[in-house]
Amino acid sequence: MEKVQTLKGFRDIDPKEALKRGRVLSLVKSVFKSYGFAPLETPTLEYAKLLEGKYGDAEKLIYKFEDRGGRMAALRYDLTVPLARFIAENKGKITFPFKRYQIGNVFRADKPQAGRYREFTQVDIDTVGVDSALADAEILTVFATALSLLGVEKFTIKVNDRNIFKDLPTATVRILDKWDKIGEAGVKKELNKAGLKEEEILKTVKNQEPTPRLKETFDLLDGFGIPTEQWEFDPLLARGLDYYTGIVFEVTIPGSKGSIAGGGRYDEMIGMFTNEKIPAVGGSFGLARLMEIVPEKTYSKIPFKSQVLVTIFSKELLPQTIELFDEIQGAGVETELYLDPEAKLEKQLKYADRKSIPYVLIMGPEEVKTNKVTIKDLTKETQETLDKDALLTLLKTQ
Amino acid sequence: MEKVQTLKGFRDIDPKEALKRGRVLSLVKSVFKSYGFAPLETPTLEYAKLLEGKYGDAEKLIYKFEDRGGRMAALRYDLTVPLARFIAENKGKITFPFKRYQIGNVFRADKPQAGRYREFTQVDIDTVGVDSALADAEILTVFATALSLLGVEKFTIKVNDRNIFKDLPTATVRILDKWDKIGEAGVKKELNKAGLKEEEILKTVKNQEPTPRLKETFDLLDGFGIPTEQWEFDPLLARGLDYYTGIVFEVTIPGSKGSIAGGGRYDEMIGMFTNEKIPAVGGSFGLARLMEIVPEKTYSKIPFKSQVLVTIFSKELLPQTIELFDEIQGAGVETELYLDPEAKLEKQLKYADRKSIPYVLIMGPEEVKTNKVTIKDLTKETQETLDKDALLTLLKTQ
Repeated sequence: MEKVQTLKGFRDIDPKEALKRGRVLSLVKSVFKSYGFAPLETPTLEYAKLLEGKYGDAEKLIYKFEDRGGRMAALRYDLTVPLARFIAENKGKITFPFKRYQIGNVFRADKPQAGRYREFTQVDIDTVGVDSALADAEILTVFATALSLLGVEKFTIKVNDRNIFKDLPTATVRILDKWDKIGEAGVKKELNKAGLKEEEILKTVKNQEPTPRLKETFDLLDGFGIPTEQWEFDPLLARGLDYYTGIVFEVTIPGSKGSIAGGGRYDEMIGMFTNEKIPAVGGSFGLARLMEIVPEKTYSKIPFKSQVLVTIFSKELLPQTIELFDEIQGAGVETELYLDPEAKLEKQLKYADRKSIPYVLIMGPEEVKTNKVTIKDLTKETQETLDKDALLTLLKTQ
Repeated sequence: MEKVQTLKGFRDIDPKEALKRGRVLSLVKSVFKSYGFAPLETPTLEYAKLLEGKYGDAEKLIYKFEDRGGRMAALRYDLTVPLARFIAENKGKITFPFKRYQIGNVFRADKPQAGRYREFTQVDIDTVGVDSALADAEILTVFATALSLLGVEKFTIKVNDRNIFKDLPTATVRILDKWDKIGEAGVKKELNKAGLKEEEILKTVKNQEPTPRLKETFDLLDGFGIPTEQWEFDPLLARGLDYYTGIVFEVTIPGSKGSIAGGGRYDEMIGMFTNEKIPAVGGSFGLARLMEIVPEKTYSKIPFKSQVLVTIFSKELLPQTIELFDEIQGAGVETELYLDPEAKLEKQLKYADRKSIPYVLIMGPEEVKTNKVTIKDLTKETQETLDKDALLTLLKTQ
């Protein structure tokens, strides 16, 4: 017998969870589209060289291998670097501002932890080719609108400008960036350990005023109708990645650790791939984190199961049974036909019960003779025999 | 400057194509769901060992590499073997028959050819845990229904039973399987070369009658309302893969080479992963091939672009402009706000033109004073100034 399990650090997503994810993505996409963002799909694999030098220390987490043609390939680590590559490769054909969304899986050879996997889905939006505060504010607005549509009532978009740190050395910024993970005490300790004057640095940073650019962005958020409870200025927010050049943001949920989304402006990255500076701003939801906070009511309209099971009384009556199935199916009712004509009725009823299918239809010899159908309501534990018109009316009004 | 291109054999899917793919997948999923198939997502990577010995000669096309923990990993080659692994791993928790669909990218290190890439999207449905002809017929019915809903009018589902070949050696079956690619003359030549009596073999195979099981399946297709023009018995159809044990099928388009879908019954495969025989039947669409034959009218309802561009007359009028944008956006009209408040109106109009956005709104000082909006219809090349209510009525009835 072979080793039958998912690769270490990877997971399956079962039908129920997959249906929920589908619902969340469909709502989120509707918001993206309504603001003029269009989908883009880039490959799962890129030249390894493209990803190298973009992620700082995290570079060691990139999955790399040599393909059969001797090329060094890598599984994508995020959707931002592939976007930058796409822009550089196609800039002559693109109308700017270019607004795209991408939903795709990314790969990081990280230590597996509870709820964290080596393959996970990112949901990105980016606006490329314009460096205005308006573009920044729109990204935040789309994130806030999407969360509201998903039924997430309480969230905070923490916002900062990387230029606040421009007089501080990178090492200091990296330590400040750990605030969420290790807290104020931890940050102080690390600053101290690095021989830095922790009190002075923290006081300076904490007392920062928003930059004029941030003030402009905040005014625009008001204009877009984003309530002030949904965002706050956070002078300590750094975001780990090296490539941010302006606004940075993270979406947090009160009472929950870590962030469910984040992003910022990266005006220099595309220029690494082409001899032209092309500004860009964007952000990314982690789908798994997002799923943790979407309330159950958002899923209330998902048909997690068929509404009706058409059972098979006997193989002889199969033609009439399929005819019944076709009629109900054709009326737009989510219907399943039991697939084993040899199975006892009891087994078929048990299947409906285990899958929580509420209605079961029976087409026996008596029903065929009188042109009627017996319907069992497994929830109410009732049963009646109806003619087909009455049956269809009943099922369609459920 | 770095090498800025997609990895050899891989491609980007631009927004227009991605929107079309989204539409096709959404229609196809609606059919799958209506027959009681539910989504499953398995990881992109599996243990290499899991995939080995499943694909015959094609095994050399599997992307394999050693991960940082010294495990041999592989990019999935199809969605069937991962399904079998999922079933074996979770059989205690699953209610059979288990009907799932999966849409996912698979990877094959094949020679790149026109229109064929090393990463491509497969769309699979499978019914696991039941060995009836009814399950076979339902899979074909779902494929036919999906194609009809996609607006594909002419297609042929070629159907055969692998048991027709059971007295022939595997080498002979492999040669017969090349019929579509090399034609009758080619098949004869290869049979001859292999020292086989080609005339005799071909005559025997061509004159085969459908097996009783196939006859039963064809009767059920009638019952499901699938017109006889949409399927045919093809005693020469073998399907290359070794793992089929019963019905095999391929969907072809008259006048087009190759197949757009295929599948069959594989009752022995799951047993390779667990000490229990679990029957299964299913099939797979290649999304790229499918896209080639879906008619344009299927995409007629896709909003490929925003309907309205709200331009920015001047930075001073930005608050009123954003207010206008919010109102139109809130009314459910696909609207875009121009994102550079410094851009000249001419540049903004050019953007709308290049993106084929039909309506452009202008909120100048005169409009603000009189609480009106100027709307330009770029298609008709007309312009008028309306109050907001009239404007919203106009846009919502487009």
